[in-house]
Amino acid sequence: MLEQLKQQVYEANMLLPKYNLVVMTWGNVSGIDRESGLVVIKPSGVEYSKLRPNMMTVVDLDGNIVEGDLRPSSDTPTHIELYKAFKTIGGVTHTHSSKATAWAQAGKGIPAFGTTHADNFDGEIPCTRKMTQKEIVTEYEKNTGLVIIETLSGKNPERMPAVLVHSHGPFTWGKDAVQSVEESLVLENVAMLALDKVLLNNISGSCYNPMQEELLRKHFDRKHGPNAYYGQ
Amino acid sequence: MLEQLKQQVYEANMLLPKYNLVVMTWGNVSGIDRESGLVVIKPSGVEYSKLRPNMMTVVDLDGNIVEGDLRPSSDTPTHIELYKAFKTIGGVTHTHSSKATAWAQAGKGIPAFGTTHADNFDGEIPCTRKMTQKEIVTEYEKNTGLVIIETLSGKNPERMPAVLVHSHGPFTWGKDAVQSVEESLVLENVAMLALDKVLLNNISGSCYNPMQEELLRKHFDRKHGPNAYYGQ
Amino acid sequence: MLEQLKQQVYEANMLLPKYNLVVMTWGNVSGIDRESGLVVIKPSGVEYSKLRPNMMTVVDLDGNIVEGDLRPSSDTPTHIELYKAFKTIGGVTHTHSSKATAWAQAGKGIPAFGTTHADNFDGEIPCTRKMTQKEIVTEYEKNTGLVIIETLSGKNPERMPAVLVHSHGPFTWGKDAVQSVEESLVLENVAMLALDKVLLNNISGSCYNPMQEELLRKHFDRKHGPNAYYGQ
Amino acid sequence: MLEQLKQQVYEANMLLPKYNLVVMTWGNVSGIDRESGLVVIKPSGVEYSKLRPNMMTVVDLDGNIVEGDLRPSSDTPTHIELYKAFKTIGGVTHTHSSKATAWAQAGKGIPAFGTTHADNFDGEIPCTRKMTQKEIVTEYEKNTGLVIIETLSGKNPERMPAVLVHSHGPFTWGKDAVQSVEESLVLENVAMLALDKVLLNNISGSCYNPMQEELLRKHFDRKHGPNAYYGQ
Repeated sequence: MLEQLKQQVYEANMLLPKYNLVVMTWGNVSGIDRESGLVVIKPSGVEYSKLRPNMMTVVDLDGNIVEGDLRPSSDTPTHIELYKAFKTIGGVTHTHSSKATAWAQAGKGIPAFGTTHADNFDGEIPCTRKMTQKEIVTEYEKNTGLVIIETLSGKNPERMPAVLVHSHGPFTWGKDAVQSVEESLVLENVAMLALDKVLLNNISGSCYNPMQEELLRKHFDRKHGPNAYYGQ
Repeated sequence: MLEQLKQQVYEANMLLPKYNLVVMTWGNVSGIDRESGLVVIKPSGVEYSKLRPNMMTVVDLDGNIVEGDLRPSSDTPTHIELYKAFKTIGGVTHTHSSKATAWAQAGKGIPAFGTTHADNFDGEIPCTRKMTQKEIVTEYEKNTGLVIIETLSGKNPERMPAVLVHSHGPFTWGKDAVQSVEESLVLENVAMLALDKVLLNNISGSCYNPMQEELLRKHFDRKHGPNAYYGQ
Repeated sequence: MLEQLKQQVYEANMLLPKYNLVVMTWGNVSGIDRESGLVVIKPSGVEYSKLRPNMMTVVDLDGNIVEGDLRPSSDTPTHIELYKAFKTIGGVTHTHSSKATAWAQAGKGIPAFGTTHADNFDGEIPCTRKMTQKEIVTEYEKNTGLVIIETLSGKNPERMPAVLVHSHGPFTWGKDAVQSVEESLVLENVAMLALDKVLLNNISGSCYNPMQEELLRKHFDRKHGPNAYYGQ
Repeated sequence: MLEQLKQQVYEANMLLPKYNLVVMTWGNVSGIDRESGLVVIKPSGVEYSKLRPNMMTVVDLDGNIVEGDLRPSSDTPTHIELYKAFKTIGGVTHTHSSKATAWAQAGKGIPAFGTTHADNFDGEIPCTRKMTQKEIVTEYEKNTGLVIIETLSGKNPERMPAVLVHSHGPFTWGKDAVQSVEESLVLENVAMLALDKVLLNNISGSCYNPMQEELLRKHFDRKHGPNAYYGQ
């Protein structure tokens, strides 16, 4: 069943190692068939090099396994909550990508610092609050979804297709599985740019003193001046 | 028309993913035929792996599409302003490359810190002022070009082939499309070196205390001393 | 003898360059046959591209070479101490991987900052104390093993499969040689995330001020708004 | 003439892009035939992909071109000074590798922080003083060599095979051309480790507070505890 969606979700999952968003078996992508209300998701703990379209697991929105020999990703209840709350999305991606996860571990949303961010996210990419002990102990993965939804409360998930889960990492979504991966890729780039930006702004002014003028002159002129002798 | 220039501009665009200066469809390169006053530029939003020379769009210096089935890059009006103001340049590149964009987001020009910089740029690579609300709301992409030109005012664009646009990213130029990409590559390297340089200078002195002398002795001598036993 | 284990230890060693955990001839992996008490380990100073399964050296738990034409890794006495103290492990890996080694050089254990860490390590990954001059001068490699064991004292090595040796780098272990390399890979990722996390938390609040609202609006809306004109 | 040395110097130069120590045409490696006193060096400004063994230039220790159609590297006078002062070396490498160059731009030597450093360098890798205006204006490349030699004064170049030139970048040397490149590779790694080390030590203690204990418990136990349900 849902062979086409399985193929698409498989291909979306394979973008994760291609885009360097995961190591080992980390990360997972799902897609939903809104008509039947069935979700296709990566199986848990399988190496990407061994993944095949027919290994994708099918679950319903109550979390029951409808088809598949392998256990679905442990994060499946999180994906399900997002599909239930965000009616217009068709795909969800979870990674521990390097820079986005660093922001999540710092417990900080990523402010909009530039147009790369603004091209994709309508404002600060929020970080959830810490989950309570109760939320962690019981139905942890489902509650992870709920705290994401709480964090987005009042915002349009199509205009803010990403949330950082505190001390954990990013979840992203899109109109289908492939687009949800692309949001993860853009998020990772935005997180990288933002880290370097705050590092630069935190540095004291005297560190920005330039080199000797005479050395600048020498190097520019030996290559570009009237008596240039650098290069063939 | 302009088949040779299209081929060259195509090849210059393909250097962007090769040099890791872009992800997704980001970035664009153009070249100008000064005789006819026509600009060849990458189409908007096309994946690099699907780009072909005959997809390049031809526009005139008023921004009219002269040839091409695809819409030219959204940044075309910026390129056009640069060609109009800087009469000696033949190619323009725009990227959101990681380190140069971080400096742009920090709102800081990159001071000349070393000879890698001085080999290519005659002084600080400037960052524009923030654009005004009016400049942003109306003819934004054209005004982006104008604020770059204002920033370079009084400088020779051949000696300073790059500007960072505040909260945005770099534009570079050169005698042709390929050289404008090479300027982006050098800029990205210079931006990376400069970031690490200011980080180092900002660190307090006590962090530079060396390791134990006895451990240094042991490791150097077990490999290079008279009784070395490390390696075959 | 032990041809199967040699093959496995060979393959585990070859994962080190594959996972970018080593440069040159750095790093070494071993595996133990608990029945015979024999350890198979990479020879010292051989390039990975020239390594073959039959070059693996076999030593006993007293450090005697039982088979092999090449000298075993200089770190063999460290591996042996770990096998003697941690009865349930089957493989040991040593690297100078970039981020884990930076923490070791800083003399700092890696606190548990997020779920990537918690998925693999039951708490802070400890850093040893500095070794004494006496420990360094005599039987240095054996004493390196002993200070790792001292550092883990009271902890289950299966729940904490890594230690950073002060001013040196990480040792990891697992149920076999391959798993010990995977622990090194996870450790390196965890160390990278942790470095960026502490950098972010150390930055003063004003550096997190967002970009101009009008520029955010312009860029988001030109791509996603009702009058979007970005992309095809 | 010197065909074997040309081949070796060619291969050593090709290691620079392989090891990611250079971009564009940057960097150069030379080797010396001590018997004839002739130096073989990369030509200036040639792309690595177009480099061939027979393009290598031969110069004598007075800087005269003895063989070759292409101009030798602009840094040839620096190489020559090093060969004249350090009688036991056979190869010299110059790069603008990322992390070593950042230390040079910061004007700081790299202290010995750990065993990766100590395995190769007998103490702090020194950074030269700034060159004087006079040294820069006249015979700049020769004076670059002299300031390196001054900086190493009293030290054995075999025990300290690298110097950082202030606001410029590293020069390294070894018994032959290939070994001098390997020293550059090790230096780049050591510089990277050292940067991250001082960053970590500069961060205030409160940034090292760990995550919630309950979240650590949950994640470790769902994968490794008695009721583990993570993975297949």
